[in-house]
Amino acid sequence: MESQIIHRGHYLTFRVDTVERADGTRALREVCGHPGAVAVVALTDDGHVLLVRQFRSPAGREMLEIPAGTLSVDPLTGITEDPLAAAERELEEETGYRAGSWELLTSFWTAPGFATELMHLYLARDLSPVAEDRRGPEEDERLVLESLPWQEAVAAVERGDICDSKSIAALLWLARLKAAGAA
Amino acid sequence: MESQIIHRGHYLTFRVDTVERADGTRALREVCGHPGAVAVVALTDDGHVLLVRQFRSPAGREMLEIPAGTLSVDPLTGITEDPLAAAERELEEETGYRAGSWELLTSFWTAPGFATELMHLYLARDLSPVAEDRRGPEEDERLVLESLPWQEAVAAVERGDICDSKSIAALLWLARLKAAGAA
Repeated sequence: MESQIIHRGHYLTFRVDTVERADGTRALREVCGHPGAVAVVALTDDGHVLLVRQFRSPAGREMLEIPAGTLSVDPLTGITEDPLAAAERELEEETGYRAGSWELLTSFWTAPGFATELMHLYLARDLSPVAEDRRGPEEDERLVLESLPWQEAVAAVERGDICDSKSIAALLWLARLKAAGAA
Repeated sequence: MESQIIHRGHYLTFRVDTVERADGTRALREVCGHPGAVAVVALTDDGHVLLVRQFRSPAGREMLEIPAGTLSVDPLTGITEDPLAAAERELEEETGYRAGSWELLTSFWTAPGFATELMHLYLARDLSPVAEDRRGPEEDERLVLESLPWQEAVAAVERGDICDSKSIAALLWLARLKAAGAA
């Protein structure tokens, strides 16, 4: 497979891949290159899920989602951040909480038709607040922390109030774990 | 919000948005513009789900997913295809089936952190095969049709064998409908 870089942005890359058709001829595929990401189902001891509300310019609206973020790439070495370290960092930055227990639930492609983003989904438990003066949210994020009992978070998915694919997948996954007595 | 087009591809657009930080200063956001998409949970009378296996160049691997596709945009008028019409078209092109019953389950953003793609998820039932000579799959798609009993499709999600966010969200949504006796 050939791949041509059209534009290299700060963290996204726009490229065109040449793939082979069934009849042996070739077709072009536009692809958005992405370093990968993490998302976190953070479950409190009393069964609440931590959520963040923020304006999403690609969607053109405010959205309520589970905490998530992009893997950092070291500009000098090109090495991509370890997903668990990224999950710990994003949870702390976005919610002000740390977790004593981390479990990788699954990894999935968010949009494999056009984007290379692979997202790692974690279940975080045994949460404790980080001291106020040690919190370091990203400067350009405007986040509002909310929390819902997990059943209400699932109901918000079913009503369409939580409407991004990672949060839907994550909260329905949690509902299955709960139904199986495994969370 | 300002938005600058960096590159306009055949169906993806690469742009940079300027958003306002909490402190009033501005930050840049790279965004992948996408016309929107549809995905279909196609459920047979005997409880099987139709799935398609194909190579996904963004993921660099073969994947097993529910049928899905991008909304067409008329090059002359710029008008975007009706989502239900797109769902009917994609189901027929990718599986060779038509559905007598269509229900919009939900709509969600696949990756609202960087992509504008809004995906509409349908439940299709009362399936019937299209006559062989009337099938018109896209020429550049290499698809293999498979089907699984819905419980096995959900198990494939939980094992990570089905690992894209739309299919995970869709199949776990179906599992909840089944548990509630609503599908």
